[in-house]
Amino acid sequence: MSTNSLNVALAMPASTARTVFPPTSLDPLERSLNLLSHDPIEDFHSPEGRAVLVEADVLITGWGCPMIDDAVLDAAPRLRYVLHAAGTVKHHIGDACWERGIQISSAADANAIPVAEYTVAMIVLANKKVLQIAQALHSTRTAVPAEQLFPDMGNYRKRVGIIGASKIGRHVIRLLAGYELEVVVADPYLSASEASALGVGLLSLDELVASSDVVSLHAPSLPSTKNLIDAGLIERMRPGATFINTSRGELVDQEALLARVEKGDLYAILDVTTPWVLPAESRFYSHPNVLLTPHVAGSLGTELERMAASAVQEALRLSRGVPLAYQLKAEDLAITA
Amino acid sequence: MSTNSLNVALAMPASTARTVFPPTSLDPLERSLNLLSHDPIEDFHSPEGRAVLVEADVLITGWGCPMIDDAVLDAAPRLRYVLHAAGTVKHHIGDACWERGIQISSAADANAIPVAEYTVAMIVLANKKVLQIAQALHSTRTAVPAEQLFPDMGNYRKRVGIIGASKIGRHVIRLLAGYELEVVVADPYLSASEASALGVGLLSLDELVASSDVVSLHAPSLPSTKNLIDAGLIERMRPGATFINTSRGELVDQEALLARVEKGDLYAILDVTTPWVLPAESRFYSHPNVLLTPHVAGSLGTELERMAASAVQEALRLSRGVPLAYQLKAEDLAITA
Repeated sequence: MSTNSLNVALAMPASTARTVFPPTSLDPLERSLNLLSHDPIEDFHSPEGRAVLVEADVLITGWGCPMIDDAVLDAAPRLRYVLHAAGTVKHHIGDACWERGIQISSAADANAIPVAEYTVAMIVLANKKVLQIAQALHSTRTAVPAEQLFPDMGNYRKRVGIIGASKIGRHVIRLLAGYELEVVVADPYLSASEASALGVGLLSLDELVASSDVVSLHAPSLPSTKNLIDAGLIERMRPGATFINTSRGELVDQEALLARVEKGDLYAILDVTTPWVLPAESRFYSHPNVLLTPHVAGSLGTELERMAASAVQEALRLSRGVPLAYQLKAEDLAITA
Repeated sequence: MSTNSLNVALAMPASTARTVFPPTSLDPLERSLNLLSHDPIEDFHSPEGRAVLVEADVLITGWGCPMIDDAVLDAAPRLRYVLHAAGTVKHHIGDACWERGIQISSAADANAIPVAEYTVAMIVLANKKVLQIAQALHSTRTAVPAEQLFPDMGNYRKRVGIIGASKIGRHVIRLLAGYELEVVVADPYLSASEASALGVGLLSLDELVASSDVVSLHAPSLPSTKNLIDAGLIERMRPGATFINTSRGELVDQEALLARVEKGDLYAILDVTTPWVLPAESRFYSHPNVLLTPHVAGSLGTELERMAASAVQEALRLSRGVPLAYQLKAEDLAITA
């Protein structure tokens, strides 16, 4: 079999396919591989699902793809590659895939981009207190003495602390290279020479939190990171600093954060909380130093097409006999989202 | 006289000097030039002012510096350079300076940086409708169906239209190079080859406005740009588009903008309006599609130090016998802010 006759199929709910794969996005697959069906496999055990699965060399998966376990693999004798058009593969890649040597790739790099872009926008606005000033202008409808309220405002000679040199953290660093801000990182897996190659300072979490004007959290949600940003660290954040969380609520002592915010000298921009939608009586909603967004930093809308394009590019690499660009290893999953 | 014995003095209100020139910022001048006084000249015609002025080869000026006219220049026989630690020089550089061949430099490049940074942050949030979604979350205190409300949300495959390849417009373009957005520019002074060198498309103002997801105004305020964004252009903006103005209110037909915003299908982020502080009854304050900020995109707070540093660097170039990096020409003033 020549590599350009690879059989490829989609596996995900039809609703995911509709939003993530716009009509023309499959054209490259039709040109360079053998696209078994325009309809995705929604259920691996339905007759239609089984008929496609038995022929597939490559599956392109999306949000809501059912678990790929031994039973599925038994029905997929040709399957060698699963290319996920989204971030984490923890919900649909079973141990069986790793054990049988299926090559797995994800669009986690593509998914990191919008989170980093959201973060950098918020860092710039936070250092300048733009949203607080806008709020004051809209509510008072009169001149706002911005520099009197915030003498240290500005995106110059400020320190931005990145917790976690993850894909997202690294893209934040990359985007901030165009700014005159000092970027420091805390990450137990990052060496001093790696930090230096990234052009950032490497600090302990304690030092980072105590010295940064903006602290942005980009560590994965793992058992070991639960409550990582604990009451002690929250207490040590600088007066006037802003804490940004686009990771997961579970990493933060939310009660301690609220208490510090209510002291009035800490700002918070939270795209994630515990639970993801806070109860209506939560005081986070009403505090002027808090901006809440409902888990929108990640890929949404047109950004889903970027993840689809990433998976399609992976399939095209296979058709050319080129290694996957974003292949995952089983052992990576222990320290990533 | 060797070039490293140049006499330098500050000329600006003491209040400007205090905020723009922090104590250590003058150290390089003391090391490499002869700093005549730590106190700025506030009045060129006072006895203390005259005593410093008569010795000065170089003046470093700031916001509120009095006009430098023939009378001042008559009292400044050694003066050859005026280095402005802010943007426009139109308020203090008289014709006499140009006529007598005084070399003038400004920190307009440094002042462009924060405006561009504000703009890029707002572009990213606008394409994703982050502020609208945050507003909905804070006011409803329940899950917000972001993608249902804004199916086209996202910073991917979007067009950003930059009106004016000014210093600010060019820095916006530079910062956006790290994003997967299509950037187009309209500027009557930009050639197709210059646009191509910037990596952007060149469109007519009409085409740009009608096809961009975000339209950001970076043209200077000049008699010829008054009402540049007129009712017809405002009408042609795309449904769902965002208009950002960090330039001057006078460039925009504000009534037409309000009418289009109130139709409900245009968003506006306005750092400048006419007048700068809108009357309390203005409907711009209350429309959910409008974010007003009180002229804060430019240098404020720590960002003033960047302009001071820029002027100090110019002085150090003179001390080394190197040409000014940001020298202005009289003819530039007709087409810049």
